[in-house]
Amino acid sequence: MSRPVRFELLARDTGSGARVGRLATPHGTLETPAFMPVGTQATVKGLTPDLLRATGSRMILANTYHLALRPGEEVVAALGGLHTFMGWDGPILTDSGGFQVFSLAARSKIRDSGVTFRSHLDGSLLELTPERAVAIQSALGADVAMCLDHCPALPATRDEVADAVRRTIAWAERCKAAHERPDQSLFGIVQGGAHADLRAECTEALLGLDFDGYAVGGVSVGESREQVRLALEVTTHLLPEDRPRYLMGVGRPQDIIDAVATGIDLFDCVLPTRNGRNATCLTDQGPVKLRNAAHRYDSRPVEEDCNCLACRKFSRAYLRHLFLAKEMLGPILASIHNLTYLQRLTLRIREAIIAGRFVPFRTEVLEALGP
Amino acid sequence: MSRPVRFELLARDTGSGARVGRLATPHGTLETPAFMPVGTQATVKGLTPDLLRATGSRMILANTYHLALRPGEEVVAALGGLHTFMGWDGPILTDSGGFQVFSLAARSKIRDSGVTFRSHLDGSLLELTPERAVAIQSALGADVAMCLDHCPALPATRDEVADAVRRTIAWAERCKAAHERPDQSLFGIVQGGAHADLRAECTEALLGLDFDGYAVGGVSVGESREQVRLALEVTTHLLPEDRPRYLMGVGRPQDIIDAVATGIDLFDCVLPTRNGRNATCLTDQGPVKLRNAAHRYDSRPVEEDCNCLACRKFSRAYLRHLFLAKEMLGPILASIHNLTYLQRLTLRIREAIIAGRFVPFRTEVLEALGP
Repeated sequence: MSRPVRFELLARDTGSGARVGRLATPHGTLETPAFMPVGTQATVKGLTPDLLRATGSRMILANTYHLALRPGEEVVAALGGLHTFMGWDGPILTDSGGFQVFSLAARSKIRDSGVTFRSHLDGSLLELTPERAVAIQSALGADVAMCLDHCPALPATRDEVADAVRRTIAWAERCKAAHERPDQSLFGIVQGGAHADLRAECTEALLGLDFDGYAVGGVSVGESREQVRLALEVTTHLLPEDRPRYLMGVGRPQDIIDAVATGIDLFDCVLPTRNGRNATCLTDQGPVKLRNAAHRYDSRPVEEDCNCLACRKFSRAYLRHLFLAKEMLGPILASIHNLTYLQRLTLRIREAIIAGRFVPFRTEVLEALGP
Repeated sequence: MSRPVRFELLARDTGSGARVGRLATPHGTLETPAFMPVGTQATVKGLTPDLLRATGSRMILANTYHLALRPGEEVVAALGGLHTFMGWDGPILTDSGGFQVFSLAARSKIRDSGVTFRSHLDGSLLELTPERAVAIQSALGADVAMCLDHCPALPATRDEVADAVRRTIAWAERCKAAHERPDQSLFGIVQGGAHADLRAECTEALLGLDFDGYAVGGVSVGESREQVRLALEVTTHLLPEDRPRYLMGVGRPQDIIDAVATGIDLFDCVLPTRNGRNATCLTDQGPVKLRNAAHRYDSRPVEEDCNCLACRKFSRAYLRHLFLAKEMLGPILASIHNLTYLQRLTLRIREAIIAGRFVPFRTEVLEALGP
């Protein structure tokens, strides 16, 4: 059976698990490792599609939970699907909505059938089941859909994690059975926390279902670098070589480099755009805080050798002014810089892997960035 | 003496006072009638310079009051002046700051020497004099600076208007004497309300000072179409033919067309961007309110024959979603449409004047727009 999303391995690092691949989707091809900006509500905050593409971004993520609540997947479908609706003709991945149900919605109750919750918008009682997660994502029409998984709240006991793994496997089976859209791939999600045996159990079961790609779940924004490493150490090597591997919700430069070293191909995170809106810019020398008084007369760009719109055209002094004056252009330009930074980082990672110098590259970058 | 801003008359309508001109500035040339978007704090809200240029905008306005308070004109000057600071290499006009002192600042007190006020940002006591208005604008370095004028609060008695005229003339003399920057033009501002004799008195005095251009002041956002007409009827014909004529603060399509008919060349107004941020779009069929439930499934663009980014790429349904979801891209796209609409309106006005059909064009447009 031909897969709507195909993955081809282009190069492998000899000193680590890092690899370069090519991901072909119905809406175009991209090289991995790749970072997907988050367009929660069918827009990457503040950026037109052209500005987004100019950051080097090729594939983006949209949030099923938010779009199902507003405007409703039936609206998106009636308007021609997510690509047409938001004017983005490149690849899109939608998450399952599960993570947001657990983190955003009020009073979520989990059962084996699915999860009930109250909308964070109007308090209405709703239910998300594996079948419904697939149906919503089919209506949205992204290139890649994700299985509904159970991501346990942290800290979790081993029993809670084991329970989540069991449910995640059962739900993956139901998602796979429900998924019919021929121009959309479905990825499975591995849970299991930092428990090697639970990760292995989950992975084995998912491999039996033969997904087009596999995600490492349960590792997310705000977790320590050590926790990210630990979860990956016990998971990535279990995943098949010929399928894309996606680490959900991770976007700190240090974490990306660590994860690539274990063999991860895809990333998404709100960090670059959220930090951008908060006036913090990513650079190879660590974060630049644009509100600082030190930048009042600072004619330098955010980063000297960056070719993004913000760095080509504007000074830190101007960006500082925009943030102090609460002007939209501040968050816009800082988001553009941060996305460009991460896209350039993944480009440099790919080049380093191909040139056989990923390990020294990793050391250099991590030393400059700090812990 | 060579003028930094030169005006050339290209065509004149036979059925009205309407005219087409060419304004040459140190930062480029534009055809008039022209509309200047407002970049209050050295940014037209939400738009990168490229997006702004793509709306057809050629000359923009920035507010002296806001920039003097934040970041301070000394910061802008140290960063290379307003053009470099904000990344806009086209013509810029700065207002004098007077209007904002009267409308925004707290406890403004007017004397013949100048006006004292408290900053709306931090309450500090400041003074704006004609000399200071010129000095700030010299530091900002726009192509056109404006004289400090006294725009009386409305409604005003005849005596109050007469007093404002007297002060406006005295201040114009002091501005002219203080102005030294050779690459910047200084425009005078005619006050006098709807009083023909006061407008005439003010105009005559200003003509004696030989400004590079003349503005009609005291007519602004929110005034009725009749008041705008009345002020123009008693003013525009008094202004010299060979200088640009600028109607400050007016941007409703109907008002622009009325004003062009009397011979006005330049406009500025926050209306297109402010309305855009409030989800209201200008069209030839009148305003489109994007939040309306009627647009939930509306696959049409805001305006069928509009070539702006918003209309080329997105549906009303998507724009409605962005506004309901409080996403920045909503205000951005609606501002782009509204600016493009006004730039296209002035283009159509120029074409109609050149083709000798401005009067029927005016009738057609006003009938479609409504009152």
